[in-house]
Amino acid sequence: MKNLYLLGATGSIGRQVCDIVDQDASAFRIVTMTANENLEGLSALIEKYHPEFVAMGSEETAHIVQMRHPGLAVGCGESGLLKAATWHPEDKTGLLVNALVGSCGLVPTYRTLEIGRSVALANKETLVIGGELIMGLAKKNHLRIDPIDSEHSAIWQCLQGNDPKAVRRLILTASGGAFREKTRAELANVTLEDALRHPNWTMGAKITIDSATMMNKGFEVIEAHHLFGLPVDRIDTVLHKESYVHSLVEYVDGSLIAQLSDHDMRLPISLALHGGTRVPNPTKPLDLGTIGQLTFEPMDFDRFPCLRMAYQAIREGGIRPCVMNAANEAAVRLFLDHKIPFLDIETIIQRQMDRVLAKESPTLDDLIAVDREVKEAVFQLYLK
Amino acid sequence: MKNLYLLGATGSIGRQVCDIVDQDASAFRIVTMTANENLEGLSALIEKYHPEFVAMGSEETAHIVQMRHPGLAVGCGESGLLKAATWHPEDKTGLLVNALVGSCGLVPTYRTLEIGRSVALANKETLVIGGELIMGLAKKNHLRIDPIDSEHSAIWQCLQGNDPKAVRRLILTASGGAFREKTRAELANVTLEDALRHPNWTMGAKITIDSATMMNKGFEVIEAHHLFGLPVDRIDTVLHKESYVHSLVEYVDGSLIAQLSDHDMRLPISLALHGGTRVPNPTKPLDLGTIGQLTFEPMDFDRFPCLRMAYQAIREGGIRPCVMNAANEAAVRLFLDHKIPFLDIETIIQRQMDRVLAKESPTLDDLIAVDREVKEAVFQLYLK
Repeated sequence: MKNLYLLGATGSIGRQVCDIVDQDASAFRIVTMTANENLEGLSALIEKYHPEFVAMGSEETAHIVQMRHPGLAVGCGESGLLKAATWHPEDKTGLLVNALVGSCGLVPTYRTLEIGRSVALANKETLVIGGELIMGLAKKNHLRIDPIDSEHSAIWQCLQGNDPKAVRRLILTASGGAFREKTRAELANVTLEDALRHPNWTMGAKITIDSATMMNKGFEVIEAHHLFGLPVDRIDTVLHKESYVHSLVEYVDGSLIAQLSDHDMRLPISLALHGGTRVPNPTKPLDLGTIGQLTFEPMDFDRFPCLRMAYQAIREGGIRPCVMNAANEAAVRLFLDHKIPFLDIETIIQRQMDRVLAKESPTLDDLIAVDREVKEAVFQLYLK
Repeated sequence: MKNLYLLGATGSIGRQVCDIVDQDASAFRIVTMTANENLEGLSALIEKYHPEFVAMGSEETAHIVQMRHPGLAVGCGESGLLKAATWHPEDKTGLLVNALVGSCGLVPTYRTLEIGRSVALANKETLVIGGELIMGLAKKNHLRIDPIDSEHSAIWQCLQGNDPKAVRRLILTASGGAFREKTRAELANVTLEDALRHPNWTMGAKITIDSATMMNKGFEVIEAHHLFGLPVDRIDTVLHKESYVHSLVEYVDGSLIAQLSDHDMRLPISLALHGGTRVPNPTKPLDLGTIGQLTFEPMDFDRFPCLRMAYQAIREGGIRPCVMNAANEAAVRLFLDHKIPFLDIETIIQRQMDRVLAKESPTLDDLIAVDREVKEAVFQLYLK
């Protein structure tokens, strides 16, 4: 029985984590869970899983949860997330499942690794912002960081049983997002509703916009660099509209190993929760004969400048990826709030990356400070 | 330095084995080599690799080789193959590379395993005819049988690092062969020249015809059953015209792992010669963005009855696959000699499979006898 500490329980990933727990109730116990705003969603999960501690985004919603569940320990905000992540600090065999969205995922991951607990990571920003710091801490404390992300899970699977020195490059596939058929000129006038319509599946709003700008793929390149220890020059991307091939590894002998499966996050979730062991789960097997064809196109970096910026950010290193992420997070927020047009997202990111001075080997406090400063700078420009 | 004992040195596989040896002359030494009829080809190889022993198919050609190379030990026929395979019987770290075509590959493999030497196997008929016997002997003597075949090499690679119990099924891809676009009615009138024109690459005549009838894929299903220990009901096939995906493994969690590479046998040869270690070789890496698309179609068993016969043969077991193989070998010989039309190949096989009585757990002598009896029966019907 493995204890799970689940951050972001009511989101798309969080709910599917619960699905996997339901598949084998004797394997997992959800000890803590958090939600940002979804009060009813969390209440239902509390009734079902009986966690020991929960946290909500705000004091108000936390108060309501406490009223409804008088015996339950309840927290809120950043301290609530930290408590949920590091609850029972003596439990080293438990697993933090970090399904948060945004830079708020960084500190809970860091503190969890500090207490000696491994992490199943769906929060992309953790490694984008603090990859060096996080991977260094995990290595020092001999802990696992297993990816909950179809691309990184695919690469993880394709690396199984192979000598890391035999890897020539990683190839991340990209669906192309909501606007893969649009020209640059057409992108100037797309609406929020257009951007939120991902062609292959439904996810949260933030990551759907990140898919449309291709920043999401840029994040994944950076994450892959940290998770698998390859320079980004050996991490490529290819457009693959059907999104059945989740990623590939090319080896020195010219062999490509690919992982394919249906559009179902429960597969990578199951693999991460079970520490890499394959367990039957509800994912429908693929029938290639019925699917008929898989298509691939070279990535177009002019069409998707955010991806180029991500390569630039990780090549420069230091705080640069943190700056990029903070600017992106703020810009996407503005776009979701109808404050800016779609193409302003990339302009805002580039401007912040040009503005903020470089800094090598940032500490956790440096990263937190930069993240805050950049977001405030962006908001001040637009929210007067 | 690994000693290689190379059967079928002048064939398509044999020549590519030499290519891989040339890539790293410090890794391998070719100690013995054989050819069937290609005198000039073998002479050139003798000059280059200085083997200790060679064998030719007939006494006449062996005599010529002996005249040209007076100091060289030379043999011929079946005994020559056996000598080449088991030369230096005390050498347990050497490797038999069996690139023979047809049932003549069985006994050299068997005798090699008996003396305690591992095998890199390109000869399909070895496992089709004597799979149980051969795998049992390899297991008993703790020896490896590594496949030189793009499909089985792909599956081998896709199984790396995974628990065998997590495998749900193997999926072999099939190019469809020379006649993949033809209807059954059109097949009645195809010529030998049509059949020898494989759409994706060039191979020897026998295997090219086996590809056109799809018997080759049937052989591969049987080989996969023996190599990887799965019942044939869990070994499927799918048509994949581009032949870049060489095969796939489906796991219990719904994940498919696939191996892709260019049409180049030097990749599986390199992997088998190096005992599963990936070493840089001349295989050109695949560029999926340039390739553009991969297509798949369900296999049509009515269109390709030879494949259905192969499933039937291995389900019945015993000598049945040996009967099927012998009938196929004789029928393909007749077709290559312009004695029968294309569709008679499958009729001949079915008739022999219906005629010969079942026999469980055949010995090596049983298999040799059945192979001979069935071939003679087929030839007697047509060569009067």
